[in-house]
Amino acid sequence: MSTSLQPQRTIAELKELRALTGNAEGAQRVAWTETWKTARAWIREKLEKLPVEIETDEAGNVWTTLRGRSDKAMLIGGHLDSVPNGGWLDGCLNVVAGMEVLRRIADEGTPPVTVRLVDWADEEGARFGRSLFGSSACSNTMNPDDLRHLVDKDGIKLVDAIANFGVNLDTAKQSHKQLQNAGAYLELHIEQGPVLESLNLPLGVVLGTFGVERHAIRFVGQSAHAGSTPMHQRRDALGAASKLHLEIREIAKRHGGVCTVGRVETKPGIVTAVVGECNITLDQRHLDAGKLAAMLQEAKDASAVFAAEENVSVEWKRIWQIHPILFNSELIEMCHQAIMESAGVVHRLPSGPLHDAAEVARAGVPTIMLFVQSLRGLSHAKEEDTREEHLVLCVEALDKLATKTMHWLANQA
Amino acid sequence: MSTSLQPQRTIAELKELRALTGNAEGAQRVAWTETWKTARAWIREKLEKLPVEIETDEAGNVWTTLRGRSDKAMLIGGHLDSVPNGGWLDGCLNVVAGMEVLRRIADEGTPPVTVRLVDWADEEGARFGRSLFGSSACSNTMNPDDLRHLVDKDGIKLVDAIANFGVNLDTAKQSHKQLQNAGAYLELHIEQGPVLESLNLPLGVVLGTFGVERHAIRFVGQSAHAGSTPMHQRRDALGAASKLHLEIREIAKRHGGVCTVGRVETKPGIVTAVVGECNITLDQRHLDAGKLAAMLQEAKDASAVFAAEENVSVEWKRIWQIHPILFNSELIEMCHQAIMESAGVVHRLPSGPLHDAAEVARAGVPTIMLFVQSLRGLSHAKEEDTREEHLVLCVEALDKLATKTMHWLANQA
Repeated sequence: MSTSLQPQRTIAELKELRALTGNAEGAQRVAWTETWKTARAWIREKLEKLPVEIETDEAGNVWTTLRGRSDKAMLIGGHLDSVPNGGWLDGCLNVVAGMEVLRRIADEGTPPVTVRLVDWADEEGARFGRSLFGSSACSNTMNPDDLRHLVDKDGIKLVDAIANFGVNLDTAKQSHKQLQNAGAYLELHIEQGPVLESLNLPLGVVLGTFGVERHAIRFVGQSAHAGSTPMHQRRDALGAASKLHLEIREIAKRHGGVCTVGRVETKPGIVTAVVGECNITLDQRHLDAGKLAAMLQEAKDASAVFAAEENVSVEWKRIWQIHPILFNSELIEMCHQAIMESAGVVHRLPSGPLHDAAEVARAGVPTIMLFVQSLRGLSHAKEEDTREEHLVLCVEALDKLATKTMHWLANQA
Repeated sequence: MSTSLQPQRTIAELKELRALTGNAEGAQRVAWTETWKTARAWIREKLEKLPVEIETDEAGNVWTTLRGRSDKAMLIGGHLDSVPNGGWLDGCLNVVAGMEVLRRIADEGTPPVTVRLVDWADEEGARFGRSLFGSSACSNTMNPDDLRHLVDKDGIKLVDAIANFGVNLDTAKQSHKQLQNAGAYLELHIEQGPVLESLNLPLGVVLGTFGVERHAIRFVGQSAHAGSTPMHQRRDALGAASKLHLEIREIAKRHGGVCTVGRVETKPGIVTAVVGECNITLDQRHLDAGKLAAMLQEAKDASAVFAAEENVSVEWKRIWQIHPILFNSELIEMCHQAIMESAGVVHRLPSGPLHDAAEVARAGVPTIMLFVQSLRGLSHAKEEDTREEHLVLCVEALDKLATKTMHWLANQA
């Protein structure tokens, strides 16, 4: 462990940020608000004490650069913005821990490669429903026309809200030039799931982010009187839906992915009528593109079988889809070593939620994430928490990973 | 067939009533409205041509009495009121066909027993949500306090609406005295289900009305992120609900009853979250009280097993319940004979929907119903229909049943 790294300072600073930008309901650092601005000013004041340059790019991302002997850059990223009534760790852990690592590196003099801390703009998309704003502009995958007409619940347009922060939708993608010399991207995040806690492990290497298939499925049968319609004469749309729901769980287990029916709507939806129409949502995720495609095909095939059994029709409509994004295999090994050296135990797992890291990886930058255990898997809620001893370990592991990555990049040069 | 019976006149009169009290959306004879008043005035004018006495009782039921040689009375009943946008047959078929039978009997001189046609008030409960108003007052099962605070969608109170028709909630049950000399009650109705059509039969003897168990069932698990929560760590409330829905269908088939899940609600109900809470409704019906109780117990037992499998809690709340009501066995045999003589084929079936006949039977009056085929099982909709040749047959069968019943009652005296 580097002598100048002070993980306890990270915990103290996270509590300071919570006091400054949260309330009894949780964190309130929603992007493009005054509270978010307060949070960014707070960290800027601390970063300005280091020998760094700080700039805000065209997408509103803040880059803090510690020049090294090479232009090749190691990026460490996170986001200060939160959902409304959010937790004290989601997003800001990455930025505050990254600042501590930057301090340690700066303390040791000019590093072999350039080190840059990035605070992404609007990862959560909490106000306008579009997540990964800053990182998708930077990775060049954003389509401005998809965002142009977004409004918040008060009717304020996204384009007007971001203009208050000097961001123009049509020039936001110029942020892409920030990745010019990027050699690696590191992101630490709370797991936001129950896996590490269930294994009693503090830290995990993230293999990549799941690909997602998201669909709306409609079954149409015939609404009928619950009293006068014998069982064998029914066309029960809910029958096919119930069967499919149970089947997609088996499909998920068979392929090692996850499948979820999160919403069921019944029409007419009254106690005395057989369901004539049933609408359900399906969310399927897998790290392997082939297995994700197989899960989707098996669900479609099963829905057709169940629809025929129930004498109802079935119709699928895709809501959204993204391919799996795999992180860099060499960084995975380095991250594995860094976690072993810090905690003595390690686990490899995929990320269910998307993160800014996925956008950076899509832009071709070798990328890695590490997860620290979440208590009870809770996130996006004030109950979100992580044990302090685990927070110490994750700062140490990120620091060791940064050292390994700098050497890796320096040796490439 | 009695020479003076004119079933075609019944069809013509039903069409006349449809033209007078319906529109392009269907029948509009909602109880306690001007259109209902119009319908009742229309039939009263026709009935006044017969040698009868007409009176309206304390519950708003209209009784047309043809005095016989005995005070013992055979009742024939139906209801002129309809749901909004209803069909041309539901309820009024019984009253108009009953009028035709009354004409035939009156034409033959003083009958051996008294014959009374009753037009029940507000069978449908379409406006205030409380069905069987007039017949439950007459049978003495109504609890006025259950109705006192009912309001329609415009905020008008039931007590005020019925006062416009001279009905007082607190004296309505004085209607009960109308059953004093009642020896039998006959009711003809469209099936409102698909059974007779599927068997290609015009008419059926009704064995009784189903008992009903109606429950709200709540499963509570844990809402969780659809991406970050592995399948084996979920507490999927919808999992238990889907299993129970499929199981209640098997329970129904095993016992020869019907079971329906008509409504499913999922919380938080979003595509990206495992369902943390799922509320469903269950409606179970059987003609046999023991089998109905067994169906309920098996559903409860199954829900506990599925809740344990899914690591969720389950809670049941009864919405409503009614015991099965069996019709009179001697009248069942007479009705069987009357249908055989009219149509040459017969079927015995239970009634899923409730009818005024159920209330009369609860009051201890020997009761019977006969069903005529419904096309596509549709009712409570303008598409409700029955073939005219079947309407002719049902009037003839009701007439034959009335003759048999009068002899039965006369021989009892």
